Amino acid sequence: MAAAVTIRILGVGMGPQHVTPEVADALNGVDYVLAADKGEDDALLALRREIVRAHGGAEVLGLRDPARDRSDGLSTGAYESAVADWHDARAAQYADVLRRRGGTAAFLVWGDPSLYDSTIRVVEKVRDLLGPDTDVDFDVLPGISAPQLLAARHRIVLHEVGRPVHITTGRRLQEAVAAGLDNILAMLNPAPDRLDFTGLDDWTIWWGANLGAAGERLVAGRVGDVLPAIADARAAAHADDGWVMDAFLIRRTL
Amino acid sequence: MAAAVTIRILGVGMGPQHVTPEVADALNGVDYVLAADKGEDDALLALRREIVRAHGGAEVLGLRDPARDRSDGLSTGAYESAVADWHDARAAQYADVLRRRGGTAAFLVWGDPSLYDSTIRVVEKVRDLLGPDTDVDFDVLPGISAPQLLAARHRIVLHEVGRPVHITTGRRLQEAVAAGLDNILAMLNPAPDRLDFTGLDDWTIWWGANLGAAGERLVAGRVGDVLPAIADARAAAHADDGWVMDAFLIRRTL
Repeated sequence: MAAAVTIRILGVGMGPQHVTPEVADALNGVDYVLAADKGEDDALLALRREIVRAHGGAEVLGLRDPARDRSDGLSTGAYESAVADWHDARAAQYADVLRRRGGTAAFLVWGDPSLYDSTIRVVEKVRDLLGPDTDVDFDVLPGISAPQLLAARHRIVLHEVGRPVHITTGRRLQEAVAAGLDNILAMLNPAPDRLDFTGLDDWTIWWGANLGAAGERLVAGRVGDVLPAIADARAAAHADDGWVMDAFLIRRTL
Repeated sequence: MAAAVTIRILGVGMGPQHVTPEVADALNGVDYVLAADKGEDDALLALRREIVRAHGGAEVLGLRDPARDRSDGLSTGAYESAVADWHDARAAQYADVLRRRGGTAAFLVWGDPSLYDSTIRVVEKVRDLLGPDTDVDFDVLPGISAPQLLAARHRIVLHEVGRPVHITTGRRLQEAVAAGLDNILAMLNPAPDRLDFTGLDDWTIWWGANLGAAGERLVAGRVGDVLPAIADARAAAHADDGWVMDAFLIRRTL
Protein backbone atom coordinates (compact mmCIF):
# COMPACT_ATOMS: atom_id res chain seq x y z
CA MET A 1 0.00 0.00 0.00
CA ALA A 2 1.24 3.48 -0.87
CA ALA A 3 2.22 5.86 1.93
CA ALA A 4 -0.02 8.92 2.22
CA VAL A 5 0.88 12.54 2.80
CA THR A 6 -1.51 15.47 3.08
CA ILE A 7 -0.16 18.96 2.49
CA ARG A 8 -2.10 22.10 3.37
CA ILE A 9 -0.90 25.39 1.89
CA LEU A 10 -2.23 28.09 4.21
CA GLY A 11 -2.30 31.79 3.44
CA VAL A 12 -1.86 33.64 6.73
CA GLY A 13 -2.22 37.19 5.44
CA MET A 14 0.04 39.99 6.59
CA GLY A 15 0.10 38.93 10.24
CA PRO A 16 -1.80 37.18 13.05
CA GLN A 17 -4.63 39.74 12.70
CA HIS A 18 -5.44 38.16 9.30
CA VAL A 19 -5.50 34.45 10.13
CA THR A 20 -8.95 33.34 8.97
CA PRO A 21 -11.11 30.86 10.91
CA GLU A 22 -10.59 28.21 8.21
CA VAL A 23 -6.81 28.60 8.39
CA ALA A 24 -6.92 28.49 12.20
CA ASP A 25 -8.94 25.24 12.00
CA ALA A 26 -6.49 23.78 9.49
CA LEU A 27 -3.49 24.62 11.71
CA ASN A 28 -5.17 22.95 14.66
CA GLY A 29 -5.41 19.76 12.63
CA VAL A 30 -1.91 19.38 11.17
CA ASP A 31 0.89 17.17 12.50
CA TYR A 32 3.68 19.65 11.75
CA VAL A 33 4.56 22.79 9.83
CA LEU A 34 7.35 23.08 7.28
CA ALA A 35 9.05 26.46 7.04
CA ALA A 36 12.06 27.93 5.34
CA ASP A 37 14.69 29.23 7.74
CA LYS A 38 16.69 32.01 6.16
CA GLY A 39 19.19 32.35 9.00
CA GLU A 40 19.45 32.95 12.69
CA ASP A 41 17.77 36.37 12.56
CA ASP A 42 14.69 35.33 10.58
CA ALA A 43 11.93 37.67 11.73
CA LEU A 44 9.35 36.15 9.37
CA LEU A 45 10.03 32.63 10.69
CA ALA A 46 9.46 33.99 14.19
CA LEU A 47 6.08 35.39 13.10
CA ARG A 48 5.15 32.00 11.60
CA ARG A 49 6.02 30.33 14.91
CA GLU A 50 3.85 32.84 16.76
CA ILE A 51 0.88 32.07 14.48
CA VAL A 52 1.30 28.31 14.91
CA ARG A 53 1.56 28.65 18.71
CA ALA A 54 -1.73 30.59 18.71
CA HIS A 55 -3.54 27.85 16.75
CA GLY A 56 -2.76 24.40 18.11
CA GLY A 57 0.99 24.63 18.57
CA ALA A 58 2.08 22.03 16.00
CA GLU A 59 5.81 21.44 15.66
CA VAL A 60 7.52 23.86 13.26
CA LEU A 61 10.39 22.34 11.28
CA GLY A 62 12.60 25.16 10.05
CA LEU A 63 14.65 23.97 7.07
CA ARG A 64 17.67 25.98 5.98
CA ASP A 65 16.70 27.87 2.86
CA PRO A 66 18.86 26.86 -0.12
CA ALA A 67 21.10 29.58 -1.56
CA ARG A 68 19.61 31.70 -4.34
CA ASP A 69 21.04 34.33 -6.64
CA ARG A 70 19.14 37.47 -5.61
CA SER A 71 21.32 40.00 -7.46
CA ASP A 72 19.30 43.03 -8.55
CA GLY A 73 21.11 43.14 -11.90
CA LEU A 74 19.89 39.74 -13.19
CA SER A 75 18.23 39.68 -16.60
CA THR A 76 14.63 38.46 -16.61
CA GLY A 77 15.74 35.08 -18.03
CA ALA A 78 18.50 34.63 -15.45
CA TYR A 79 16.04 35.64 -12.74
CA GLU A 80 13.51 33.00 -13.79
CA SER A 81 16.23 30.36 -14.02
CA ALA A 82 17.57 31.25 -10.55
CA VAL A 83 14.04 30.95 -9.16
CA ALA A 84 13.57 27.52 -10.80
CA ASP A 85 16.84 26.16 -9.34
CA TRP A 86 15.85 27.39 -5.93
CA HIS A 87 12.41 25.76 -6.20
CA ASP A 88 14.13 22.45 -7.04
CA ALA A 89 16.45 22.64 -4.05
CA ARG A 90 13.62 23.51 -1.68
CA ALA A 91 11.40 20.73 -3.05
CA ALA A 92 14.12 18.10 -2.46
CA GLN A 93 14.47 19.19 1.17
CA TYR A 94 10.74 19.07 1.80
CA ALA A 95 10.25 15.72 0.00
CA ASP A 96 12.89 14.21 2.25
CA VAL A 97 11.08 15.29 5.43
CA LEU A 98 7.63 14.32 4.14
CA ARG A 99 8.87 10.86 3.11
CA ARG A 100 10.26 10.24 6.59
CA ARG A 101 7.40 11.70 8.64
CA GLY A 102 4.25 11.29 6.54
CA GLY A 103 0.99 12.55 8.02
CA THR A 104 -0.45 16.03 7.48
CA ALA A 105 1.94 18.92 6.97
CA ALA A 106 1.26 22.63 6.54
CA PHE A 107 3.10 25.37 4.73
CA LEU A 108 2.34 28.88 5.96
CA VAL A 109 2.41 31.44 3.18
CA TRP A 110 2.88 35.10 4.04
CA GLY A 111 0.11 37.00 2.25
CA ASP A 112 -1.74 34.85 -0.30
CA PRO A 113 -0.48 31.74 -2.13
CA SER A 114 -1.84 33.00 -5.46
CA LEU A 115 0.41 36.06 -5.89
CA TYR A 116 4.19 35.97 -6.33
CA ASP A 117 4.64 33.00 -4.05
CA SER A 118 6.38 29.75 -4.93
CA THR A 119 4.76 27.36 -2.46
CA ILE A 120 2.20 25.81 -4.82
CA ARG A 121 4.88 25.21 -7.48
CA VAL A 122 7.28 23.76 -4.92
CA VAL A 123 4.59 21.42 -3.58
CA GLU A 124 3.87 20.19 -7.12
CA LYS A 125 7.58 19.38 -7.44
CA VAL A 126 7.50 17.64 -4.07
CA ARG A 127 4.62 15.48 -5.29
CA ASP A 128 6.63 14.52 -8.37
CA LEU A 129 9.72 13.75 -6.27
CA LEU A 130 7.76 11.53 -3.89
CA GLY A 131 6.64 9.53 -6.91
CA PRO A 132 4.01 6.82 -7.27
CA ASP A 133 4.81 5.19 -3.91
CA THR A 134 3.29 8.09 -2.01
CA ASP A 135 -0.26 9.43 -2.36
CA VAL A 136 0.07 13.18 -2.05
CA ASP A 137 -3.07 15.20 -1.47
CA PHE A 138 -2.86 18.98 -1.16
CA ASP A 139 -5.16 21.94 -0.84
CA VAL A 140 -4.80 25.71 -0.65
CA LEU A 141 -6.51 28.26 1.60
CA PRO A 142 -6.30 31.97 0.72
CA GLY A 143 -4.88 34.79 2.87
CA ILE A 144 -4.99 38.58 2.79
CA SER A 145 -2.39 39.82 0.30
CA ALA A 146 -0.17 42.91 0.27
CA PRO A 147 -2.12 44.68 -2.54
CA GLN A 148 -5.32 44.41 -0.52
CA LEU A 149 -3.75 45.81 2.63
CA LEU A 150 -2.07 48.56 0.60
CA ALA A 151 -5.49 49.58 -0.77
CA ALA A 152 -7.15 49.36 2.65
CA ARG A 153 -4.52 51.53 4.32
CA HIS A 154 -4.76 54.18 1.62
CA ARG A 155 -8.59 53.77 1.64
CA ILE A 156 -8.68 53.35 -2.12
CA VAL A 157 -10.16 50.94 -4.64
CA LEU A 158 -7.40 49.45 -6.82
CA HIS A 159 -8.98 50.76 -10.04
CA GLU A 160 -11.37 53.39 -11.38
CA VAL A 161 -15.05 52.30 -11.68
CA GLY A 162 -15.30 49.24 -13.94
CA ARG A 163 -11.68 49.60 -15.12
CA PRO A 164 -8.72 47.20 -14.88
CA VAL A 165 -5.75 46.92 -12.56
CA HIS A 166 -2.58 45.29 -13.87
CA ILE A 167 -0.54 43.42 -11.25
CA THR A 168 3.13 42.91 -12.09
CA THR A 169 6.64 43.07 -10.64
CA GLY A 170 8.72 46.20 -10.15
CA ARG A 171 11.20 45.01 -12.75
CA ARG A 172 8.41 44.81 -15.35
CA LEU A 173 6.93 48.25 -14.57
CA GLN A 174 8.18 49.97 -17.73
CA GLU A 175 7.07 47.00 -19.84
CA ALA A 176 3.52 47.57 -18.59
CA VAL A 177 3.70 51.31 -19.24
CA ALA A 178 4.98 50.64 -22.78
CA ALA A 179 1.97 48.36 -23.35
CA GLY A 180 -0.30 51.34 -22.67
CA LEU A 181 -1.46 50.29 -19.21
CA ASP A 182 -2.28 53.21 -16.94
CA ASN A 183 -3.11 51.58 -13.59
CA ILE A 184 -0.39 49.25 -12.38
CA LEU A 185 0.24 47.50 -9.09
CA ALA A 186 3.85 46.41 -8.56
CA MET A 187 5.14 43.83 -6.09
CA LEU A 188 8.48 42.06 -5.54
CA ASN A 189 10.27 45.36 -5.92
CA PRO A 190 14.03 45.84 -5.88
CA ALA A 191 15.52 48.77 -3.95
CA PRO A 192 13.97 52.04 -5.19
CA ASP A 193 17.16 53.25 -6.88
CA ARG A 194 16.96 50.12 -9.09
CA LEU A 195 13.36 50.84 -10.09
CA ASP A 196 12.79 52.77 -13.30
CA PHE A 197 10.22 55.56 -12.93
CA THR A 198 11.31 57.33 -16.13
CA GLY A 199 8.41 59.26 -17.66
CA LEU A 200 6.15 58.66 -14.67
CA ASP A 201 6.77 61.89 -12.73
CA ASP A 202 3.20 63.07 -13.17
CA TRP A 203 1.56 59.77 -12.26
CA THR A 204 0.07 59.22 -8.79
CA ILE A 205 1.61 56.58 -6.53
CA TRP A 206 0.21 54.87 -3.43
CA TRP A 207 3.11 53.07 -1.79
CA GLY A 208 3.51 50.90 1.32
CA ALA A 209 6.23 48.84 3.00
CA ASN A 210 6.01 46.11 5.64
CA LEU A 211 2.23 46.33 5.51
CA GLY A 212 0.68 44.90 8.66
CA ALA A 213 4.01 44.72 10.50
CA ALA A 214 5.43 47.03 13.17
CA GLY A 215 7.54 48.95 10.69
CA GLU A 216 4.71 49.69 8.27
CA ARG A 217 5.16 52.88 6.24
CA LEU A 218 2.83 54.57 3.74
CA VAL A 219 3.50 57.33 1.20
CA ALA A 220 1.15 58.70 -1.48
CA GLY A 221 1.40 61.52 -3.96
CA ARG A 222 2.78 62.65 -7.30
CA VAL A 223 5.66 60.34 -8.27
CA GLY A 224 8.00 63.22 -9.07
CA ASP A 225 7.42 64.68 -5.62
CA VAL A 226 7.43 61.66 -3.33
CA LEU A 227 10.23 59.35 -4.55
CA PRO A 228 12.69 60.70 -1.96
CA ALA A 229 10.11 60.23 0.81
CA ILE A 230 9.59 56.64 -0.38
CA ALA A 231 13.33 55.90 -0.25
CA ASP A 232 13.48 57.27 3.30
CA ALA A 233 10.38 55.37 4.41
CA ARG A 234 11.71 52.11 2.94
CA ALA A 235 14.95 52.51 4.89
CA ALA A 236 12.98 53.27 8.06
CA ALA A 237 10.77 50.17 7.60
CA HIS A 238 13.91 48.05 7.17
CA ALA A 239 15.46 49.56 10.30
CA ASP A 240 12.32 48.83 12.35
CA ASP A 241 11.65 45.24 11.26
CA GLY A 242 15.03 43.93 10.04
CA TRP A 243 13.47 43.18 6.62
CA VAL A 244 11.57 45.16 4.03
CA MET A 245 8.94 44.28 1.40
CA ASP A 246 7.01 46.94 -0.44
CA ALA A 247 4.24 47.30 -3.01
CA PHE A 248 2.70 50.22 -4.82
CA LEU A 249 -0.15 51.21 -7.08
CA ILE A 250 0.73 53.74 -9.76
CA ARG A 251 -1.90 55.44 -11.94
CA ARG A 252 -1.69 57.87 -14.83
CA THR A 253 -3.20 61.15 -13.66
CA LEU A 254 -6.05 62.25 -15.92
CA MET B 1 -19.13 71.29 18.51
CA ALA B 2 -19.36 69.12 15.38
CA ALA B 3 -21.12 65.75 15.61
CA ALA B 4 -18.83 62.77 15.06
CA VAL B 5 -19.38 59.62 13.06
CA THR B 6 -16.97 56.72 12.65
CA ILE B 7 -17.41 54.39 9.70
CA ARG B 8 -15.63 51.06 9.40
CA ILE B 9 -15.58 49.37 6.00
CA LEU B 10 -15.04 45.69 6.71
CA GLY B 11 -14.09 43.09 4.13
CA VAL B 12 -15.65 39.80 5.23
CA GLY B 13 -14.26 37.57 2.51
CA MET B 14 -16.37 34.96 0.75
CA GLY B 15 -18.17 33.79 3.90
CA PRO B 16 -17.96 33.38 7.69
CA GLN B 17 -14.92 31.10 7.22
CA HIS B 18 -12.95 34.16 6.06
CA VAL B 19 -13.79 36.72 8.75
CA THR B 20 -10.37 37.76 10.06
CA PRO B 21 -9.66 38.42 13.75
CA GLU B 22 -9.32 42.17 13.11
CA VAL B 23 -12.70 42.28 11.36
CA ALA B 24 -14.28 40.23 14.16
CA ASP B 25 -12.86 42.70 16.71
CA ALA B 26 -14.15 45.64 14.70
CA LEU B 27 -17.66 44.14 14.48
CA ASN B 28 -17.70 43.61 18.22
CA GLY B 29 -17.06 47.33 18.69
CA VAL B 30 -19.58 48.96 16.35
CA ASP B 31 -22.96 50.41 17.29
CA TYR B 32 -24.76 49.22 14.17
CA VAL B 33 -24.26 47.84 10.68
CA LEU B 34 -25.59 49.42 7.50
CA ALA B 35 -26.50 47.05 4.70
CA ALA B 36 -28.23 47.22 1.36
CA ASP B 37 -31.43 45.19 1.20
CA LYS B 38 -32.13 44.10 -2.36
CA GLY B 39 -35.52 42.59 -1.65
CA GLU B 40 -37.28 40.09 0.53
CA ASP B 41 -35.26 37.13 -0.73
CA ASP B 42 -31.80 38.62 -0.23
CA ALA B 43 -29.51 35.68 0.49
CA LEU B 44 -26.41 37.87 0.79
CA LEU B 45 -28.09 40.11 3.39
CA ALA B 46 -28.91 36.95 5.36
CA LEU B 47 -25.22 35.95 5.26
CA ARG B 48 -24.23 39.40 6.51
CA ARG B 49 -26.69 39.06 9.39
CA GLU B 50 -25.21 35.67 10.25
CA ILE B 51 -21.69 37.14 10.37
CA VAL B 52 -22.79 40.03 12.59
CA ARG B 53 -24.63 37.66 14.96
CA ALA B 54 -21.44 35.61 15.32
CA HIS B 55 -19.36 38.68 16.26
CA GLY B 56 -21.15 40.86 18.81
CA GLY B 57 -24.64 40.94 17.36
CA ALA B 58 -24.85 44.64 16.54
CA GLU B 59 -28.10 45.86 14.99
CA VAL B 60 -28.23 45.47 11.20
CA LEU B 61 -30.12 48.23 9.40
CA GLY B 62 -31.15 46.92 6.00
CA LEU B 63 -31.85 49.85 3.67
CA ARG B 64 -33.78 49.24 0.46
CA ASP B 65 -31.27 49.31 -2.37
CA PRO B 66 -32.02 52.13 -4.85
CA ALA B 67 -32.99 51.02 -8.35
CA ARG B 68 -30.13 50.64 -10.84
CA ASP B 69 -30.03 49.96 -14.55
CA ARG B 70 -28.35 46.55 -14.75
CA SER B 71 -29.11 45.83 -18.42
CA ASP B 72 -26.40 43.64 -19.98
CA GLY B 73 -26.52 45.68 -23.19
CA LEU B 74 -25.37 49.01 -21.69
CA SER B 75 -22.41 50.75 -23.33
CA THR B 76 -19.39 51.25 -21.08
CA GLY B 77 -20.22 54.95 -20.67
CA ALA B 78 -23.86 54.28 -19.83
CA TYR B 79 -22.74 51.60 -17.39
CA GLU B 80 -20.41 53.99 -15.55
CA SER B 81 -23.10 56.65 -15.43
CA ALA B 82 -25.69 54.18 -14.08
CA VAL B 83 -23.20 53.15 -11.39
CA ALA B 84 -22.57 56.80 -10.41
CA ASP B 85 -26.30 57.57 -10.07
CA TRP B 86 -26.75 54.50 -7.93
CA HIS B 87 -23.80 55.51 -5.69
CA ASP B 88 -25.44 58.93 -5.18
CA ALA B 89 -28.78 57.44 -4.21
CA ARG B 90 -27.17 54.99 -1.79
CA ALA B 91 -25.00 57.71 -0.23
CA ALA B 92 -28.04 59.92 0.46
CA GLN B 93 -29.78 57.05 2.27
CA TYR B 94 -26.76 56.26 4.40
CA ALA B 95 -26.03 59.92 5.22
CA ASP B 96 -29.56 60.28 6.49
CA VAL B 97 -29.20 57.35 8.90
CA LEU B 98 -25.72 58.38 10.05
CA ARG B 99 -26.85 61.95 10.73
CA ARG B 100 -29.70 60.69 12.90
CA ARG B 101 -27.85 57.97 14.79
CA GLY B 102 -24.21 59.02 14.91
CA GLY B 103 -21.75 56.69 16.69
CA THR B 104 -19.76 53.96 14.98
CA ALA B 105 -21.24 52.23 11.96
CA ALA B 106 -19.91 49.33 9.88
CA PHE B 107 -20.37 48.39 6.27
CA LEU B 108 -19.73 44.72 5.51
CA VAL B 109 -18.21 44.18 2.09
CA TRP B 110 -18.49 40.78 0.45
CA GLY B 111 -14.98 39.85 -0.68
CA ASP B 112 -12.54 42.76 -0.47
CA PRO B 113 -13.32 46.51 -0.56
CA SER B 114 -10.45 47.15 -3.02
CA LEU B 115 -11.83 45.20 -6.02
CA TYR B 116 -15.01 46.07 -7.93
CA ASP B 117 -16.81 47.27 -4.85
CA SER B 118 -18.45 50.67 -4.41
CA THR B 119 -18.44 51.01 -0.63
CA ILE B 120 -15.35 53.23 -0.31
CA ARG B 121 -16.65 55.58 -3.01
CA VAL B 122 -20.12 55.68 -1.45
CA VAL B 123 -18.64 56.46 1.99
CA GLU B 124 -16.63 59.34 0.49
CA LYS B 125 -19.89 60.72 -0.91
CA VAL B 126 -21.54 60.24 2.48
CA ARG B 127 -18.75 62.26 4.09
CA ASP B 128 -19.32 65.06 1.58
CA LEU B 129 -23.09 64.97 2.14
CA LEU B 130 -22.71 65.16 5.92
CA GLY B 131 -20.68 68.31 5.38
CA PRO B 132 -18.57 70.35 7.80
CA ASP B 133 -20.98 69.94 10.75
CA THR B 134 -20.04 66.26 11.11
CA ASP B 135 -16.55 64.87 11.66
CA VAL B 136 -16.45 61.68 9.63
CA ASP B 137 -13.62 59.25 10.27
CA PHE B 138 -13.43 56.03 8.29
CA ASP B 139 -11.08 53.11 7.86
CA VAL B 140 -10.96 49.97 5.72
CA LEU B 141 -10.07 46.38 6.63
CA PRO B 142 -9.34 43.89 3.85
CA GLY B 143 -11.13 40.59 3.17
CA ILE B 144 -10.46 37.52 1.05
CA SER B 145 -11.50 38.27 -2.54
CA ALA B 146 -13.02 36.08 -5.26
CA PRO B 147 -9.81 35.91 -7.37
CA GLN B 148 -7.89 34.55 -4.40
CA LEU B 149 -10.45 31.88 -3.65
CA LEU B 150 -10.67 31.01 -7.34
CA ALA B 151 -6.90 30.45 -7.39
CA ALA B 152 -6.93 28.48 -4.14
CA ARG B 153 -9.70 26.15 -5.30
CA HIS B 154 -7.93 25.46 -8.59
CA ARG B 155 -4.60 25.25 -6.70
CA ILE B 156 -2.92 27.67 -9.07
CA VAL B 157 -0.87 30.84 -8.87
CA LEU B 158 -2.58 33.67 -10.76
CA HIS B 159 0.43 34.18 -13.08
CA GLU B 160 3.50 32.43 -14.45
CA VAL B 161 6.76 32.95 -12.45
CA GLY B 162 7.52 36.68 -12.21
CA ARG B 163 4.88 37.58 -14.82
CA PRO B 164 1.79 39.82 -14.62
CA VAL B 165 -1.90 39.18 -14.11
CA HIS B 166 -4.39 41.69 -15.50
CA ILE B 167 -7.60 42.05 -13.50
CA THR B 168 -10.56 43.45 -15.39
CA THR B 169 -14.29 43.03 -15.99
CA GLY B 170 -15.91 40.50 -18.29
CA ARG B 171 -17.17 43.26 -20.56
CA ARG B 172 -13.57 44.48 -21.06
CA LEU B 173 -12.11 41.03 -21.80
CA GLN B 174 -11.60 41.57 -25.53
CA GLU B 175 -10.12 45.02 -24.88
CA ALA B 176 -7.41 43.34 -22.76
CA VAL B 177 -6.77 40.67 -25.40
CA ALA B 178 -6.45 43.37 -28.08
CA ALA B 179 -3.84 45.14 -25.90
CA GLY B 180 -1.70 41.99 -26.10
CA LEU B 181 -2.33 40.75 -22.56
CA ASP B 182 -2.18 36.98 -22.23
CA ASN B 183 -3.14 36.32 -18.60
CA ILE B 184 -6.42 37.94 -17.63
CA LEU B 185 -8.66 37.62 -14.61
CA ALA B 186 -12.25 38.72 -15.19
CA MET B 187 -14.84 39.64 -12.56
CA LEU B 188 -18.31 41.25 -12.64
CA ASN B 189 -19.24 39.03 -15.54
CA PRO B 190 -22.54 39.15 -17.42
CA ALA B 191 -24.27 35.90 -18.33
CA PRO B 192 -21.90 33.68 -20.35
CA ASP B 193 -23.82 34.09 -23.59
CA ARG B 194 -23.12 37.86 -23.34
CA LEU B 195 -19.38 37.31 -22.88
CA ASP B 196 -17.23 37.45 -25.99
CA PHE B 197 -14.70 34.59 -26.16
CA THR B 198 -14.02 35.10 -29.89
CA GLY B 199 -10.50 33.97 -30.78
CA LEU B 200 -9.88 32.46 -27.35
CA ASP B 201 -10.83 28.83 -28.06
CA ASP B 202 -7.28 27.59 -27.48
CA TRP B 203 -6.70 29.55 -24.27
CA THR B 204 -6.98 27.86 -20.88
CA ILE B 205 -9.71 28.97 -18.46
CA TRP B 206 -10.05 28.43 -14.71
CA TRP B 207 -13.60 29.41 -13.81
CA GLY B 208 -15.60 29.49 -10.58
CA ALA B 209 -19.04 30.63 -9.43
CA ASN B 210 -20.40 31.35 -5.94
CA LEU B 211 -16.95 30.71 -4.51
CA GLY B 212 -17.14 29.88 -0.81
CA ALA B 213 -20.92 29.46 -0.86
CA ALA B 214 -23.03 26.30 -0.88
CA GLY B 215 -23.56 26.43 -4.64
CA GLU B 216 -19.87 26.78 -5.52
CA ARG B 217 -18.95 25.38 -8.94
CA LEU B 218 -15.54 25.05 -10.63
CA VAL B 219 -14.64 24.31 -14.25
CA ALA B 220 -11.20 24.35 -15.89
CA GLY B 221 -9.92 23.46 -19.33
CA ARG B 222 -9.54 24.62 -22.92
CA VAL B 223 -11.99 27.44 -23.57
CA GLY B 224 -13.33 25.86 -26.76
CA ASP B 225 -14.10 22.66 -24.86
CA VAL B 226 -15.54 23.86 -21.58
CA LEU B 227 -17.83 26.83 -22.36
CA PRO B 228 -20.96 24.63 -22.37
CA ALA B 229 -19.92 23.10 -19.02
CA ILE B 230 -19.47 26.63 -17.63
CA ALA B 231 -22.96 27.70 -18.75
CA ASP B 232 -24.44 24.61 -17.09
CA ALA B 233 -22.43 25.10 -13.89
CA ARG B 234 -23.45 28.78 -13.68
CA ALA B 235 -27.11 27.83 -13.93
CA ALA B 236 -26.64 25.16 -11.26
CA ALA B 237 -24.93 27.62 -8.89
CA HIS B 238 -27.83 30.05 -9.37
CA ALA B 239 -30.33 27.29 -8.68
CA ASP B 240 -28.53 26.28 -5.47
CA ASP B 241 -28.00 29.73 -3.94
CA GLY B 242 -30.64 31.96 -5.54
CA TRP B 243 -27.89 34.27 -6.86
CA VAL B 244 -24.77 33.82 -8.97
CA MET B 245 -21.41 35.63 -9.18
CA ASP B 246 -18.52 34.21 -11.12
CA ALA B 247 -14.89 34.95 -11.92
CA PHE B 248 -12.31 33.36 -14.18
CA LEU B 249 -8.66 33.40 -15.09
CA ILE B 250 -7.91 32.98 -18.78
CA ARG B 251 -4.39 32.42 -20.13
CA ARG B 252 -2.97 32.09 -23.61
CA THR B 253 -1.67 28.53 -23.95
CA LEU B 254 2.00 28.48 -24.95
